[in-house]
Amino acid sequence: MRYELYYWASIQGRGEFVRLALEEAGASYVDVARVADGEARMVALLGSVAVRYPPFAPPFLKAGKRLIGQTANILLFLGERHDLAPKGEAGRLWTHQLQLTLADLVVEAHDTHHPIASSLYYEDQRREAKRRGADFVANRLPKFIGYFERVLAANPHGSAHLVGSRLTYADLSLFQVVAGLRYAFPNAMARHAGRHRRVTELCARVASRKRIAQYLASERRLPFNQEGIFRHYAALDE
Amino acid sequence: MRYELYYWASIQGRGEFVRLALEEAGASYVDVARVADGEARMVALLGSVAVRYPPFAPPFLKAGKRLIGQTANILLFLGERHDLAPKGEAGRLWTHQLQLTLADLVVEAHDTHHPIASSLYYEDQRREAKRRGADFVANRLPKFIGYFERVLAANPHGSAHLVGSRLTYADLSLFQVVAGLRYAFPNAMARHAGRHRRVTELCARVASRKRIAQYLASERRLPFNQEGIFRHYAALDE
Repeated sequence: MRYELYYWASIQGRGEFVRLALEEAGASYVDVARVADGEARMVALLGSVAVRYPPFAPPFLKAGKRLIGQTANILLFLGERHDLAPKGEAGRLWTHQLQLTLADLVVEAHDTHHPIASSLYYEDQRREAKRRGADFVANRLPKFIGYFERVLAANPHGSAHLVGSRLTYADLSLFQVVAGLRYAFPNAMARHAGRHRRVTELCARVASRKRIAQYLASERRLPFNQEGIFRHYAALDE
Repeated sequence: MRYELYYWASIQGRGEFVRLALEEAGASYVDVARVADGEARMVALLGSVAVRYPPFAPPFLKAGKRLIGQTANILLFLGERHDLAPKGEAGRLWTHQLQLTLADLVVEAHDTHHPIASSLYYEDQRREAKRRGADFVANRLPKFIGYFERVLAANPHGSAHLVGSRLTYADLSLFQVVAGLRYAFPNAMARHAGRHRRVTELCARVASRKRIAQYLASERRLPFNQEGIFRHYAALDE
């Protein structure tokens, strides 16, 4: 079976968490919006009344006849199918808990440049962004990254992975979040780097995994840009 | 086994989604922070390095020796244990997908009064709140509620429940979100009411369920107030 991933064609965004899991799993998939008419097909599906389980927003994944939405929920599904999470309930829920905490961080990172409304341009909320960005960099960013550092330090199987002794989708997602934060907040991340060595090492290990390295070097990996979740504005990273 | 729920003692907040599931299930639980020294015990647990699966923030649930965090993740766990979600994978994931969409709405509702930083007072971000609140009421609120109305209309088993023909934790959570939105945005919700009759009816049905009605009438149900996620500021609900 070939999965169909539905997400915006021009950004990594939330779709990237799904792409990384599919790539690591070596799963067959098509990134629908990046083929001809794909984005129009995605928008049509979003508005369709014929869909059994209608998603609220991209990304969503078509698996056979099923449509599965919400990034963390898609990963819950893929984790079970492709051995990217423990089989047992405790480990499965713990992996998911970490993913949901990363999802919270993603929202906060996004809202630094869009604190008022996603429908407005950054330029229309620049002053508010500066205030929110300052709080994010001073308080929220170190709190979140410090948490994942603590989780790695506390893992009884060692700090090579967030959960147990094997790679999970939470590791892939932490890699992606840190990559995004480095793009958006290079100064803040450099200042904090000494305090989250385990996180840094985990990210380097993920990037060097065979399939992930191949993916990152391919044209399938979109570059970060100023339209995604993670955007670099110098005013927000002082 | 008696569950222990850890959440702030003075607000419904995110803990309320867990309380509603525990109440509907008739589960035995203690709301730890509301007994003597409970909040201090919660804060100690949050900072403890001895915890196997450390939560990032409340709410978290102690089930036997396990600590489970993230609201939607706790509900995933309780849904399976207490028959508050379908057993099959498709229905289980669909219920969770709806919960995660409600969680997105909760963040946006909260951020109307705290668009800059949770650590600041509303009074310190009043101007920004007015802008964000206006966008929420005009665009986001109708989009989210309209989505749940559409999900109810599309349910092949009828619009009595979000998922299939039986109550799930997603129904309980939709009830809670709508109750909160009515408290925070009475004018906006009244204006939109004609467009989401199925949602309104579902909420009334949830409120009249025996255990939920008993809970809502009890002292265990905290009132909405100006410290929780849903707060009423007239300036944000014009």
